[in-house]
Amino acid sequence: MNSRIKIFITGGTFDKEYNEITGEFFFKNTHMYELLELGRCKIDIDIETLMMVDSLKMTDDERDYIINKCKSENNNKIVITHGTDTMVETALQLGNVITNKTIVITGAMIPFKFGSSDGLFNMGSALSYVQSLSDGVYLAMNGQIFNPKNVKKNKRLGIFEEIKI
Amino acid sequence: MNSRIKIFITGGTFDKEYNEITGEFFFKNTHMYELLELGRCKIDIDIETLMMVDSLKMTDDERDYIINKCKSENNNKIVITHGTDTMVETALQLGNVITNKTIVITGAMIPFKFGSSDGLFNMGSALSYVQSLSDGVYLAMNGQIFNPKNVKKNKRLGIFEEIKI
Amino acid sequence: MNSRIKIFITGGTFDKEYNEITGEFFFKNTHMYELLELGRCKIDIDIETLMMVDSLKMTDDERDYIINKCKSENNNKIVITHGTDTMVETALQLGNVITNKTIVITGAMIPFKFGSSDGLFNMGSALSYVQSLSDGVYLAMNGQIFNPKNVKKNKRLGIFEEIKI
Amino acid sequence: MNSRIKIFITGGTFDKEYNEITGEFFFKNTHMYELLELGRCKIDIDIETLMMVDSLKMTDDERDYIINKCKSENNNKIVITHGTDTMVETALQLGNVITNKTIVITGAMIPFKFGSSDGLFNMGSALSYVQSLSDGVYLAMNGQIFNPKNVKKNKRLGIFEEIKI
Repeated sequence: MNSRIKIFITGGTFDKEYNEITGEFFFKNTHMYELLELGRCKIDIDIETLMMVDSLKMTDDERDYIINKCKSENNNKIVITHGTDTMVETALQLGNVITNKTIVITGAMIPFKFGSSDGLFNMGSALSYVQSLSDGVYLAMNGQIFNPKNVKKNKRLGIFEEIKI
Repeated sequence: MNSRIKIFITGGTFDKEYNEITGEFFFKNTHMYELLELGRCKIDIDIETLMMVDSLKMTDDERDYIINKCKSENNNKIVITHGTDTMVETALQLGNVITNKTIVITGAMIPFKFGSSDGLFNMGSALSYVQSLSDGVYLAMNGQIFNPKNVKKNKRLGIFEEIKI
Repeated sequence: MNSRIKIFITGGTFDKEYNEITGEFFFKNTHMYELLELGRCKIDIDIETLMMVDSLKMTDDERDYIINKCKSENNNKIVITHGTDTMVETALQLGNVITNKTIVITGAMIPFKFGSSDGLFNMGSALSYVQSLSDGVYLAMNGQIFNPKNVKKNKRLGIFEEIKI
Repeated sequence: MNSRIKIFITGGTFDKEYNEITGEFFFKNTHMYELLELGRCKIDIDIETLMMVDSLKMTDDERDYIINKCKSENNNKIVITHGTDTMVETALQLGNVITNKTIVITGAMIPFKFGSSDGLFNMGSALSYVQSLSDGVYLAMNGQIFNPKNVKKNKRLGIFEEIKI
């Protein structure tokens, strides 16, 4: 079950850095390599940074680019790191056009660099779901797996919740 | 897919504490609660500490106790934290007697208290596998999922490897 | 030399919290107690929070309050945590009116909660200088001790530098 | 007051590494460089590793070597990192032969690599004491400064205490 997995990096809180001079956040390089080393992860993985953006500022063109990269990707197991604010929207659009791959989107509420990040937990989760679930687009947060059609971010609590229909 | 999950704690490096007076390791309480909080885990979970032992010192009686607790457990999704040295043996014995539940065993190479633990990653992984896999006993380490019959710990490298048959 | 020391908390980056819902910083309680525990500090210390403010927003009234609290303080050894941006100004004003106590101002470039803070190092430094220096007002940052009259914050580099006269 | 400072590394818990394969501790390289970077320390410092030993196993020859290195050192401000168990003995011997330099010995109860070390606090302390105290040999632990003749390690509590005469 452990075939090669593609990880696409798009930014989000997950990879934010704190600029101690200005007190603001910014992006530099992804911390995925050190995260996987910390997790002693031995899966055959290929990491590619597509962009480094705050998901609230993600443009339509950028979202299209993510979708096209997933479409043309040879591996059929893909994990995407993404800002949590518009993660559901990207997942929905992906689900509309890709049906023959397993794609899991995840992110973090706390930057990995802060040392007490949920990102390490979430990547353990996303990488496991992508290996064990059948084709489809999923969202992995809070230890749970969601169908993008039935989930929303509760912005007050900072967690993802299933929409009861 | 997010029904209640049982977590059984048995000790191992995962929960070891460093005694700064003697320079030795010891067990106190499990760090599972803070780990799940760090991971912003919102799954419905019930944690029960069965024992706090180094798995190299786990007795037959203790191993039987784990098996009996899994047998009599009402939830059919179980995660067990366990020392890595004899994790495979416990998994094999569990697999011999329990077939109607999904049980995932995991652990850590570095104590959670050391701050840079693989335990956070491994628990994200184990909790995701236990929710997505069908009945069976599995071992989750290094981001991978193993059948206990086909895995061994490479003690020189400190990682788990599939046995090629 | 280890008489009782007063620590006055005024806020600054040192005690900032990250709000993972909004992505902004805020103040709650000081982390001084856990910092001193981490440092295994056994000095006889009394901690008092005067305010929790970003030093760029510190008002004249607030600065006066700090000065008055230092004046009326019974212990003659005082450490003040303070935002780095206007730390020099507060130190200068303190030096103008208080000459019979040893007062050391310090702060941090990274919030203590981020796990890799300079705050732990700076407090080790400030508490040592306050015990070993004679009466006067000092600024302790970057492992160094400065006379407030001869120091400025290099805002581009985020460090404190002696002004060569 | 900020002339060049020499740091001599001798090992101790401060620089211990955890071997996750064997579960034992070992020495590799000092973590002093990353510690000083974390503390944003800008003092002019020269670091030299003399040995990497557990202070309980320090031989007479090794202790003589430390003393000779301190004697022949050109800088008259020296900080030594040292295991806590025999730190007092080394300090006493140093004090017997060196009177024209300021030497501060410190260490840690928790390895720096564990992330929650007192080592960062202690180095902030030692580097400040060495800059502010007059000639003599001192021991800096627990935020305090001790005369080696009047201090002992309380091995039950893991702290240093002044001996009341």
